[in-house]
Amino acid sequence: MKKINLPEAITAVKGYWEPVIVGSINDHNAKIAKFKGEFVWHHHSDTDELFLILKGTVHIELEGETKELKEGDLFVIKKGVEHRPVALEEAHVLMIEKRGTINTGNVVNEQTKTNLKTV
Amino acid sequence: MKKINLPEAITAVKGYWEPVIVGSINDHNAKIAKFKGEFVWHHHSDTDELFLILKGTVHIELEGETKELKEGDLFVIKKGVEHRPVALEEAHVLMIEKRGTINTGNVVNEQTKTNLKTV
Repeated sequence: MKKINLPEAITAVKGYWEPVIVGSINDHNAKIAKFKGEFVWHHHSDTDELFLILKGTVHIELEGETKELKEGDLFVIKKGVEHRPVALEEAHVLMIEKRGTINTGNVVNEQTKTNLKTV
Repeated sequence: MKKINLPEAITAVKGYWEPVIVGSINDHNAKIAKFKGEFVWHHHSDTDELFLILKGTVHIELEGETKELKEGDLFVIKKGVEHRPVALEEAHVLMIEKRGTINTGNVVNEQTKTNLKTV
């Protein structure tokens, strides 16, 4: 069991939309990622997804509305809900979701990341 | 689905060691709490427990060692591991653990809190 300083750990993350695993809680993982630009519309059919904004601003587009999340904001996207994260400037995010969750959910495209690194 | 600003939400928390539920992720809950003073030695026999320090410093005493956690530090205490959180000054903490987890784990004392509030 080791402690991980999130601001330091995320500084070492190279790319955008490339989650890195920072912890395991039962059958869930904690991941950090840098967001910048537009992600793909997708949903996760078997897991809720918690977002905690560590730095910057993230817009979570949902069908019919957009949630603007700023530093310190926590938001849970329920299982099956279509969403698209957008960050106009670089943002740093902590996510909690079931182990094995693919970042692009039901979609496979160039933003899909598998074989995630673990800090 | 509503967003919750953790620094604002924790300002509204009255007591110490009184977790408030801020989110639900599958069968897990996200909770915030103010820590100050010494908690009780305990363990959770059926869940890991994630701590993320939002403000201040928390010492997690384990058998044989103590982890000093500062703002931005994330730490997971595995299922069954005896631990005691201690905060010399007020600290603010986000926790992720299985729904229904009792704060004092296998111990019942005056610090045990049930029927938690939800923001």
